[in-house]
Amino acid sequence: MQDERAGADGLPTYADVARAAERIAGTAHRTPVLTSRTADAMTGAKLFFKAENLQRAGAFKFRGAYNAISALPEAVRARGVLSFSSGNHAQAIALASRLLGIPATIIMPADAPAAKVAATRGYGAEVVLYDRYSQDREALGREIAGPRGLTVIPPFNHPDVIAGQGTLAQELIETVGPLDVLVACLGGGGQLAGCALAAAELSPGCRVIGVEPEAGNDGQRSFHAGRVVTIPVPRTIADGAQSTALGDLTFAIIRARVAEIVTVSDAQLVETMRFFAGRMKLVAEPTGCLAAAAVLQGLVDVWDKRVGVVISGGNVDLATFARLTGEAA
Amino acid sequence: MQDERAGADGLPTYADVARAAERIAGTAHRTPVLTSRTADAMTGAKLFFKAENLQRAGAFKFRGAYNAISALPEAVRARGVLSFSSGNHAQAIALASRLLGIPATIIMPADAPAAKVAATRGYGAEVVLYDRYSQDREALGREIAGPRGLTVIPPFNHPDVIAGQGTLAQELIETVGPLDVLVACLGGGGQLAGCALAAAELSPGCRVIGVEPEAGNDGQRSFHAGRVVTIPVPRTIADGAQSTALGDLTFAIIRARVAEIVTVSDAQLVETMRFFAGRMKLVAEPTGCLAAAAVLQGLVDVWDKRVGVVISGGNVDLATFARLTGEAA
Repeated sequence: MQDERAGADGLPTYADVARAAERIAGTAHRTPVLTSRTADAMTGAKLFFKAENLQRAGAFKFRGAYNAISALPEAVRARGVLSFSSGNHAQAIALASRLLGIPATIIMPADAPAAKVAATRGYGAEVVLYDRYSQDREALGREIAGPRGLTVIPPFNHPDVIAGQGTLAQELIETVGPLDVLVACLGGGGQLAGCALAAAELSPGCRVIGVEPEAGNDGQRSFHAGRVVTIPVPRTIADGAQSTALGDLTFAIIRARVAEIVTVSDAQLVETMRFFAGRMKLVAEPTGCLAAAAVLQGLVDVWDKRVGVVISGGNVDLATFARLTGEAA
Repeated sequence: MQDERAGADGLPTYADVARAAERIAGTAHRTPVLTSRTADAMTGAKLFFKAENLQRAGAFKFRGAYNAISALPEAVRARGVLSFSSGNHAQAIALASRLLGIPATIIMPADAPAAKVAATRGYGAEVVLYDRYSQDREALGREIAGPRGLTVIPPFNHPDVIAGQGTLAQELIETVGPLDVLVACLGGGGQLAGCALAAAELSPGCRVIGVEPEAGNDGQRSFHAGRVVTIPVPRTIADGAQSTALGDLTFAIIRARVAEIVTVSDAQLVETMRFFAGRMKLVAEPTGCLAAAAVLQGLVDVWDKRVGVVISGGNVDLATFARLTGEAA
């Protein structure tokens, strides 16, 4: 099936996902698809968990980062890239840049956890710290990027980032066959939009559902309002989904391709982390549990269906993980 | 290569492993093989982790339990099975029995963790509690098994249990190709012996190495002494490797097929649990970390080699996991 929209209005299409898959092949992990009879029994569904917590740098973000940097014209790429992030995107950009042999600059808040700064530096990136209370990181980014000719790679609102994230759904459907439902995690929308592109092509009729934190339901509100709604920085343990608004590209794809957006509470995320650790022997970060929390706790209709569920990442420090999962439920 | 020893002296052979693979196909998980560039960089090797913590009931034990019960003549099997264990073998027997529709009786110490008793009952087994200070569990087992016609399935010293465990190495080598070294965890020797049978057939020349807890080095001592050495119950966090002696079958295979047995400390096991959780996003139980601890901490020669490493199980309660991994290193 050809996508009739191909390229019009700057939105990525399935063809971009397929090209991304070629670019990342052999570099990104083809992560395993895991199943759990316990989870199936809890839900009455056949669940296929795509374990992106086992991806390089610990999250699906590596797919989009590596694809976006690889797609740059060689001369542009050689000058280097810049990104703003204190989270998984930063580490993904840093690792992808190192693998492609180009310099990466990451703008991080001065009060970011020392471990995250160290990890990003550990991948060879230059980290520029800024004061998040007095400095505008985007202005600072432009100041640094301009003279050096660095290309800014945003965390989600970019066609090649979206297309890269879509490869996870492509692999999932290739591995297990068509799905009735695909449930993805939703922050800025790169994962959800990319997965929706892949599902529409490879599993037509599949209902694609996004799950975001209750406190950060800008996606759900935007979906219902028909325009991008911006909210204050949400308070949630899902630190990878604290974005305040979808991007115009991710919103356009989500609006056209996604069936439903639901929200889960922090308590439901913790319960899901405990399920993954106790029953499936996996470390998932809170944000990585969004999709599974909605499915395991009956917030979406999966009865008797074949359901893909994205575990988006596993980057949680061990002390936090212990605190969240180690106490009696 | 035909195994010249086939069947002589009651030892299982590779043919038994191949038959076990057929019996468990579609019932046991074909667990993923995971890789980590970080681990490769730490060791200078190419490491292939066989993730049996993702096996059904959380450990490789399901392979041997299901194989041994399946192999019983139908009329014998129908009467049911009995086992002694407070650990992974008990849960494996309970689950395998349920799947095969036969009754299972498990003899467990009265002071076993309530969670383990509940899990075993949860799989549908009848649990008989005994006082480990005043009662002989084997005598009690015979008392119960005899009149009911139950077949006792021991945790390791049984040809079909050994052959079943060997299927994990068979799958690993089938998936990644020949190995230079295969490192397995060693308690009573079922896993190590089974893996050695598979490796000898499928990857001739592969050095098979067993790893046991420092405090419970009966395997190493037996290996060097040329006879089965019995030790007191060892104090170690590797609760799945607190056996006091190899069996005659496991010892005979290990002596003939294994290159080396090394030991690791509890501190090294904890460090390895932290590595798995923090870097590979996996929950592994202490016993499940034996093989990896020896490899990651340089106790075996793996430089520039292709190395299989068994992660044998993930059954650790979350509070213990949090306590062991959540504190600063």
